[in-house]
Amino acid sequence: MAQIWLWIGVVSMALGAVFFGFGAHSAKTEGWKKLYTLSFFICLIASALYLAMALGQGQTVVNDRPTVWVRYVTWSLSTPLLLLIFAFLGHTSLTLTSSLLGTNAFMIATGLAAALSPNPINYIWYVVSCAAYLAAVYLLVVPFRREAEHNRPRTQKAFGRLVAIHLILWTAYPIVWILAPTGIDAIGQGSETMFYTILDIASKVGFGFLSLNTYSKVEQIGATANDLKPTAALR
Amino acid sequence: MAQIWLWIGVVSMALGAVFFGFGAHSAKTEGWKKLYTLSFFICLIASALYLAMALGQGQTVVNDRPTVWVRYVTWSLSTPLLLLIFAFLGHTSLTLTSSLLGTNAFMIATGLAAALSPNPINYIWYVVSCAAYLAAVYLLVVPFRREAEHNRPRTQKAFGRLVAIHLILWTAYPIVWILAPTGIDAIGQGSETMFYTILDIASKVGFGFLSLNTYSKVEQIGATANDLKPTAALR
Amino acid sequence: MAQIWLWIGVVSMALGAVFFGFGAHSAKTEGWKKLYTLSFFICLIASALYLAMALGQGQTVVNDRPTVWVRYVTWSLSTPLLLLIFAFLGHTSLTLTSSLLGTNAFMIATGLAAALSPNPINYIWYVVSCAAYLAAVYLLVVPFRREAEHNRPRTQKAFGRLVAIHLILWTAYPIVWILAPTGIDAIGQGSETMFYTILDIASKVGFGFLSLNTYSKVEQIGATANDLKPTAALR
Repeated sequence: MAQIWLWIGVVSMALGAVFFGFGAHSAKTEGWKKLYTLSFFICLIASALYLAMALGQGQTVVNDRPTVWVRYVTWSLSTPLLLLIFAFLGHTSLTLTSSLLGTNAFMIATGLAAALSPNPINYIWYVVSCAAYLAAVYLLVVPFRREAEHNRPRTQKAFGRLVAIHLILWTAYPIVWILAPTGIDAIGQGSETMFYTILDIASKVGFGFLSLNTYSKVEQIGATANDLKPTAALR
Repeated sequence: MAQIWLWIGVVSMALGAVFFGFGAHSAKTEGWKKLYTLSFFICLIASALYLAMALGQGQTVVNDRPTVWVRYVTWSLSTPLLLLIFAFLGHTSLTLTSSLLGTNAFMIATGLAAALSPNPINYIWYVVSCAAYLAAVYLLVVPFRREAEHNRPRTQKAFGRLVAIHLILWTAYPIVWILAPTGIDAIGQGSETMFYTILDIASKVGFGFLSLNTYSKVEQIGATANDLKPTAALR
Repeated sequence: MAQIWLWIGVVSMALGAVFFGFGAHSAKTEGWKKLYTLSFFICLIASALYLAMALGQGQTVVNDRPTVWVRYVTWSLSTPLLLLIFAFLGHTSLTLTSSLLGTNAFMIATGLAAALSPNPINYIWYVVSCAAYLAAVYLLVVPFRREAEHNRPRTQKAFGRLVAIHLILWTAYPIVWILAPTGIDAIGQGSETMFYTILDIASKVGFGFLSLNTYSKVEQIGATANDLKPTAALR
């Protein structure tokens, strides 16, 4: 069953990459080009990850647990691009963007340490990684939203939805982690693969579409705001 | 024989690094400093690679093939600098530069996957890596040249030559790869080393000189263009 | 004994991270936020390194020597941030900042090669790494100080002290390396751990405080300089 889900992952991510790639190619403005390009690379990296896993590569038995270390390699490459989408949409400052990227990298590195460590040391790293996750959530919910709402005052709702959907998806990852063989082993590797694949498709292809939707709102409202200015000047 | 070629690589790259390093040190403008610094680091990284290989390090027998994995490590570090030379010379936009860097990284990562994978899975990764290569070629030949010719309208010829020489050199790499023990094993490891060394010297030291030459043309023509402006203003 | 020093490292770095983290959170200006954030991540990375080492992870016996490879992983991540503090304080140009980062990365990569290589090849890499270290020293002492003093003319003394303290601390690292089991094995692994821990606390937590101190001087003198300008205009 795991095998079928992995090939579903390959095809979905490849289709996502093709869609966003053509979008980047025919984008009219530099902003749209950036957004499509980021989603393209997120899907491209994920498609290579799923291809590797479908070919039976990228995993080793470490401490008697099958460990798919290749997931962490590709997460460390695709999640920064996801955060750059946030930074792009919210016109985030360099310091906050770097803090988000750093916290995210720390979370993935300690998550990999958890996956590779023997029991019970793996739980120490799991707790450290979850703490980094909570820090990333805080950065997105408080300073990121504050900056985004300051920079794009009329799109408050769209940003709230974007952050909320993102957080729901990302919160599911550590839950799958702890239930899977990496943690307490409550679900088998088949279900682990299924859940990760569904989450990956939603948080990469799905999130890509959501970000396009958010940006088109930012642009529309920005355009309206610009249209209003001359009217105001006419008074 | 392979050993001699590796030491030729060490010496050539070290000499290149010394030359470009002194160039960077005594460069008059920030632009020249950038260009020399990029070529310096390209040669420096390559000299460390050749030193490691000459000392018999950086290779392992994977799937009954001797695999020089250290090549991929250093390629992943030196090729982005090469693309930054292109970006610098052509005043390339951030999105296109990032796309080139991303495509290049994807090509090298999947190329490494090909080198480390058992037969016949290695051919799947080889095809993926070649597709990434074709995408990089497209980005250089179409959008990069379009942007470069737009930003530096009078140096069209110089850019055409730069891209052409680069593409001829880079196209030779996958050909050597498929003929070498990594692929169908038509040539031995000795010839593989010789071809890679010659290609590396040409595409690192040689290309460094070519880029200096291109930039001096850009500067000359830029200077002429600036000299013409006041004349035009005098009319 | 080594174990106690490793836990001292964990606690010191974690306390440093908490201090700089709160500083970043409550910083009033973007400049202070940047500086605190950089020190926060330096301490955060180091605290994870010490946690890994205290848990007995991150080391392998290579060529009959116990090699703590995880040190090199975290050094490669924390030292660039340290150099970014320098670049931030001195308003360093992009080319010089990149050269510093590149030289530093080359030094750590060849240092890792030295740690992993069999005797006597490890001494070749040690010499290469020390040459890179000398190049980094040169870049800091000559072009960095020149740029910093040009950009912040009234804080010459503060920068001189910052560079001097940094160089004393960093010079101690290769000395410990050559005396420890990685080199001639004159001191045991216990003393190696003690010296590295003390050096790390001084060069990460201590240096963080020093950089805050330097920046407050830069700001004060900058403020005075700005206060003087209107006076000068009144003449």
